[in-house]
Amino acid sequence: MPGSTQEVATLVKTCAAMHVAIVPQGGNTGLTGGAVASGDRPAVLLNLSRMNRIREIDAANNSLTAEAGCILANVREAADAQERQFPLLLGSVGSCEIGGLVSTNAGGTGVLRYGSMRELVLGVEAVLPDGSVWDGLRALRKDNAGYDLKQLFIGAEGTLGVVTAAVLKLFPRLSVCATAMMALSGVQQAVDLLRFMQGQVGNRIEAFEILSHRQIEIVLEHGHGLQSPMALEAPFYVLMELADSSPQWDAGAELERKLEAALERGLVLDAVVASDGAKADRIWALRHNISESNKRAGFTVSNDTSVPISRLAQFIPLVTGRIEQQVEGASVCHAGHIGDGNIHVIAVLSRALYTTPEQCEAAAARVNLIVHEASVELDGSISAEHGIGRMHVERLERFKAPIELQMMRAVKAAFDPQGLMNPGKILRAG
Amino acid sequence: MPGSTQEVATLVKTCAAMHVAIVPQGGNTGLTGGAVASGDRPAVLLNLSRMNRIREIDAANNSLTAEAGCILANVREAADAQERQFPLLLGSVGSCEIGGLVSTNAGGTGVLRYGSMRELVLGVEAVLPDGSVWDGLRALRKDNAGYDLKQLFIGAEGTLGVVTAAVLKLFPRLSVCATAMMALSGVQQAVDLLRFMQGQVGNRIEAFEILSHRQIEIVLEHGHGLQSPMALEAPFYVLMELADSSPQWDAGAELERKLEAALERGLVLDAVVASDGAKADRIWALRHNISESNKRAGFTVSNDTSVPISRLAQFIPLVTGRIEQQVEGASVCHAGHIGDGNIHVIAVLSRALYTTPEQCEAAAARVNLIVHEASVELDGSISAEHGIGRMHVERLERFKAPIELQMMRAVKAAFDPQGLMNPGKILRAG
Repeated sequence: MPGSTQEVATLVKTCAAMHVAIVPQGGNTGLTGGAVASGDRPAVLLNLSRMNRIREIDAANNSLTAEAGCILANVREAADAQERQFPLLLGSVGSCEIGGLVSTNAGGTGVLRYGSMRELVLGVEAVLPDGSVWDGLRALRKDNAGYDLKQLFIGAEGTLGVVTAAVLKLFPRLSVCATAMMALSGVQQAVDLLRFMQGQVGNRIEAFEILSHRQIEIVLEHGHGLQSPMALEAPFYVLMELADSSPQWDAGAELERKLEAALERGLVLDAVVASDGAKADRIWALRHNISESNKRAGFTVSNDTSVPISRLAQFIPLVTGRIEQQVEGASVCHAGHIGDGNIHVIAVLSRALYTTPEQCEAAAARVNLIVHEASVELDGSISAEHGIGRMHVERLERFKAPIELQMMRAVKAAFDPQGLMNPGKILRAG
Repeated sequence: MPGSTQEVATLVKTCAAMHVAIVPQGGNTGLTGGAVASGDRPAVLLNLSRMNRIREIDAANNSLTAEAGCILANVREAADAQERQFPLLLGSVGSCEIGGLVSTNAGGTGVLRYGSMRELVLGVEAVLPDGSVWDGLRALRKDNAGYDLKQLFIGAEGTLGVVTAAVLKLFPRLSVCATAMMALSGVQQAVDLLRFMQGQVGNRIEAFEILSHRQIEIVLEHGHGLQSPMALEAPFYVLMELADSSPQWDAGAELERKLEAALERGLVLDAVVASDGAKADRIWALRHNISESNKRAGFTVSNDTSVPISRLAQFIPLVTGRIEQQVEGASVCHAGHIGDGNIHVIAVLSRALYTTPEQCEAAAARVNLIVHEASVELDGSISAEHGIGRMHVERLERFKAPIELQMMRAVKAAFDPQGLMNPGKILRAG
């Protein structure tokens, strides 16, 4: 747990000299095992959590420089104190750290409007595999002076070096917002509704999340008393938030007007607008309690795939049908980010049917393969936002074109010829 | 001039076998000589203009797949026909091509709202230096399945391979807009005005361009009858456009209201709102005629630097003072993209004083060095949007940290070990 970039550099240099592998770790909230030592060779677990200083906030430049160990919630608070916002938002906001968010190109619910972490990073400081320090902490909106090297470290999951700090983009703080829950007859209607709303309110759509009927049922059954603000009679529900920095924009009135138009066009079957913040929180609680509720409902196999948005309406019934046919007793739920083409396909397996770890593992492998195959068939990705980590290395080898794996190995070899940085993550250890 | 990706591949493979260098070229509109054969070794000039097909438009996915030779204006029109927009916009819109725009990570006036080309590219197809074809034409908003290899080709100026096609992001078409010209007392006021407007209208600011008093004077003097809609008594002027896809948003009324508030706060000295499209066009003509007018005014030395936005107010007087002190008879103008921290510092030199090519070159070198030194002093970049090309290779070597040059060379060597792809551009030829 080094406390400074210099200490990271000394440690990495020592490891390089001794040929000892390094596994960088932040808040340890990743979902694919990227920050976990794999156990097949000795490695130093390099945890960045002590490097938790916000080095600078430049409000006039709308930028903030944070060390790798800064927790996301703290960065968001620091931006807020300067009447700015840092828009990245995901479930682990209270424990995930900037270094890990950069290294995994984190997504979440704000991607539709603000982009993934890659779009939110202006500069990176990293310790290279030989222990030298690269200070790429530039705070520029435009910089075409040579290759944009920070792109290599964003999403590399610590395999090319250790990200020790980053310059982040800030945005004007939002001053108005309004939330609605809508019932829809299908996935295509959700895509059409999104395009209709974008045409009506531009990019004031702060969030646009879909949940399947079965998913909300599970949340209501296992969510410790959560309630739905509307009767549940439709196959899909969308939670939408409009927000704007313009204090004069009447978000609630605009939302109601647009929903009326959407109802008239048949895009929406029914809608409820939250009349105050507490009611909005209750709507969002349905979304935020998915993971916990699913765990209580059974053995959960969750997936993180993406397809072109135009293929979502094909993808969802396809995977649902295949899982239900091929995996006994699987209840398939869907939740995700329609605007990013990113759907979490979740199979909940009854613990009465799946009793041993071996049975669970076999079912999980079956579900994952079905979902990955379907996403690749429809020109999608086997990992939309969670990354490859240790979990999907073999899957990546199976589905990526050989030329692409070769290019990835060329990059890895150019930066980490000894193969000491997070070995066995993304790519099979050399 | 190959007509297909396969023809490009055949050509590159042949060149690789024969150790012949390749210089990729698109619309040949670059400003730093990146698409020009350097003459110090034999090279094949590989022009992509015949590959000008739009392969696919997926309106529901807000994406468009264009071959490298597609002219920007044609891509914008194709998007418009689907009620979408492709927002990249720069002076050479009628002749620049997608492959070059990707390869130079092009900027322009839309960056403030939509980002540079890097943010607008979802996928890339490229022919690698050995002649193999990488099909990275994914149309996904989220894809964390391994390294994001397309980032390597964006902004690499053809030194790592030949970009043959790209998947581009589309956006909802705008339906309302309003334009104003404002007089300001200084650069800091322009930055403050931008932040004030962002707080008021969020990211409905479509353009926010600054011009110095001297720059407008030159445009009026040499712009073939162009006129200013307002008296010229302030040191700086801002041209601003608000636009929105929401047809109900009254752009003109909002603009007037916000400008009144800005006047009250002392951010703006005076303002004129264009009451119709023709008047807006006349305001924008002042901006678009800068290059032509400056050329008529004298020998022009133009620069393309960026600094953090918070340092613009320091940067502009600094370079102006140094140039005026150190370069005889230089008239310094400024025009640029305040919201990106990107200012074009333009020295216009009297042709009466600078008569020989040698005198002009010496003066240009002096001006460039002053501007580059000042931008680096203030943590800026020597090339904000034009790239390095052939022109700034030595300058890059002088100002980049050795570790960064070393990383860039490692990337180059990993992909192009023979050094055949656009040699001598960005990096000195091996």
